[in-house]
Amino acid sequence: MAIIAVGHKNPDTDTIVSAIAVADLYKKAYGKDVKPVAQGAVNPESKFVLDKFGLAAPEIVTDATGQQIILVDHTDLSQSLANLDKGEIVAVVDHHKLGDVTTTNPLEMWVWPVGCSCTVIKGMYDFFKVEVPKPIAGAMLCAILSDTVMFKSPTCTDADKKAVDALAKIAGVSDYMSIGVEMFKVKSAVEGTPMKDLLNRDYKDFDMSGKKVGIGQLEVVDLSILTPYKDGLYAEMEKAKKEGGNHSVFLLLTDIMKEGSEMLCLTDDPSVVEKAFGKKIEGKSVWLDGVLSRKKQVVPPFEKAFKG
Amino acid sequence: MAIIAVGHKNPDTDTIVSAIAVADLYKKAYGKDVKPVAQGAVNPESKFVLDKFGLAAPEIVTDATGQQIILVDHTDLSQSLANLDKGEIVAVVDHHKLGDVTTTNPLEMWVWPVGCSCTVIKGMYDFFKVEVPKPIAGAMLCAILSDTVMFKSPTCTDADKKAVDALAKIAGVSDYMSIGVEMFKVKSAVEGTPMKDLLNRDYKDFDMSGKKVGIGQLEVVDLSILTPYKDGLYAEMEKAKKEGGNHSVFLLLTDIMKEGSEMLCLTDDPSVVEKAFGKKIEGKSVWLDGVLSRKKQVVPPFEKAFKG
Ligand SMILES: [Mn+2]
Ligand SMILES: [Mn+2]
Repeated sequence: MAIIAVGHKNPDTDTIVSAIAVADLYKKAYGKDVKPVAQGAVNPESKFVLDKFGLAAPEIVTDATGQQIILVDHTDLSQSLANLDKGEIVAVVDHHKLGDVTTTNPLEMWVWPVGCSCTVIKGMYDFFKVEVPKPIAGAMLCAILSDTVMFKSPTCTDADKKAVDALAKIAGVSDYMSIGVEMFKVKSAVEGTPMKDLLNRDYKDFDMSGKKVGIGQLEVVDLSILTPYKDGLYAEMEKAKKEGGNHSVFLLLTDIMKEGSEMLCLTDDPSVVEKAFGKKIEGKSVWLDGVLSRKKQVVPPFEKAFKG
Repeated sequence: MAIIAVGHKNPDTDTIVSAIAVADLYKKAYGKDVKPVAQGAVNPESKFVLDKFGLAAPEIVTDATGQQIILVDHTDLSQSLANLDKGEIVAVVDHHKLGDVTTTNPLEMWVWPVGCSCTVIKGMYDFFKVEVPKPIAGAMLCAILSDTVMFKSPTCTDADKKAVDALAKIAGVSDYMSIGVEMFKVKSAVEGTPMKDLLNRDYKDFDMSGKKVGIGQLEVVDLSILTPYKDGLYAEMEKAKKEGGNHSVFLLLTDIMKEGSEMLCLTDDPSVVEKAFGKKIEGKSVWLDGVLSRKKQVVPPFEKAFKG
């Protein structure tokens, strides 16, 4: 039976492309049969990327029972497959903080503090002296541009930029920034999308000192695109909070050109927002200047605030 | 302030040498000031290795408060520094199963399913194209011989053997196996050692489904060396169980020549031993044929047995 390579819930482009790339690399480096899968359907941005480079969307798998697993782009149980303890994690490739996943057996882990899992995977291709296939190289560079908001995010490192340069050469892409803008326009498209899908497009639950905290993010090229949808999104947040038994649900509406985020807030304890960001909620939201990265600029201050 | 590199409690040779080697590598690869430290004094085997290659024993540090930390050779909170959540883990280098350590920030992790953390570190030196200093190469090869019981342990991989070959060349060591035998003779020496020190020489507490389970190991070149000490060791295990509030304390008396272990057992539920190994405790112990590795042959079956 094939090992499965799988990213986090509500898959983003990095999670989808990392699963595809790691599967390719492990086949070639170790001769192992690895199948890329995903916990859900690909979002419009990922579909654009896969179509552009002629790659197939991964099959959907949501349960770990009896599987050998390579986890990509996450190490949090709440973002992972159901019944993870009934499968065996054989490897982890990630670029986030270390979460609460544990294993029973020794494993392989490639985790770097860079902007994108695909940057780690480029390093692994180099380490194992395996060539990145042309279509996978194209998709990987898009994943890096997506995760780093075209190099603007504070999570972006030199390693990410170098990886994009090298991958662009392999993929034969001469102007990757214009592909990036095209991709973010696809990502910004909200018309006709049900509110629920919009909230879930990039939504993650975190365990913060025992409290369930959901944080979603929508990145757009111009925040005004979202103005007509704020009330509908807030109503969806209320539903998600109730259904999930969450302490808090936050939604970052990120303007990648203005380089900041309006955060819609729904919480049992509004003081955590002030503790975390030194600003009070006005109405239903707070403007966070310069905040582009949930991972680096939102999760750590909230974790501190929830600690007490 | 320097970053500290630190291994697990009751440091063994791999933990000591990994801290020293990682500190050297991070200085050279990243230009960072890293200081190797340890959670306790070096054991006789490690002292032999450090003396042989002219290396100093690391300073003792037991609290993480306010420190930036590189964790080596473990990811279990119970084996780590006190107040780990009051420091910041910036990197992890290990070869064990993934434990319950988590972080608030993205980090670097190098974890491979090989016989010794020093094998991973040899791979890192290669990756960063940094030369291993001669004395550190000598100590690293001893750590690998120690952790893999001179390649006999089932945890030993081809990567471990290749690393030893390469490190021996760098260290100018022509007959590393005879150094290995010398080292294991030092390790086997028990005369004059207080029982408490003997139990603690390589002792680790694990959290198994909410139960505290201590597992120690003594490796000797001939099990009969330990016959006069069994009662004294058992009495120490009783003390440790009481003081630590443990559910169980096990001590592996490993005969590296016969390739098996007598496991002294002290537990609130003797059925876990039968569940884990299919053998009943006779008197105070059970003989486990072919069992040399706590990590690979003892911890996983116990974890399964404790799960129910
Ligand atoms: Mn990612
Ligand atoms: Mn070790």
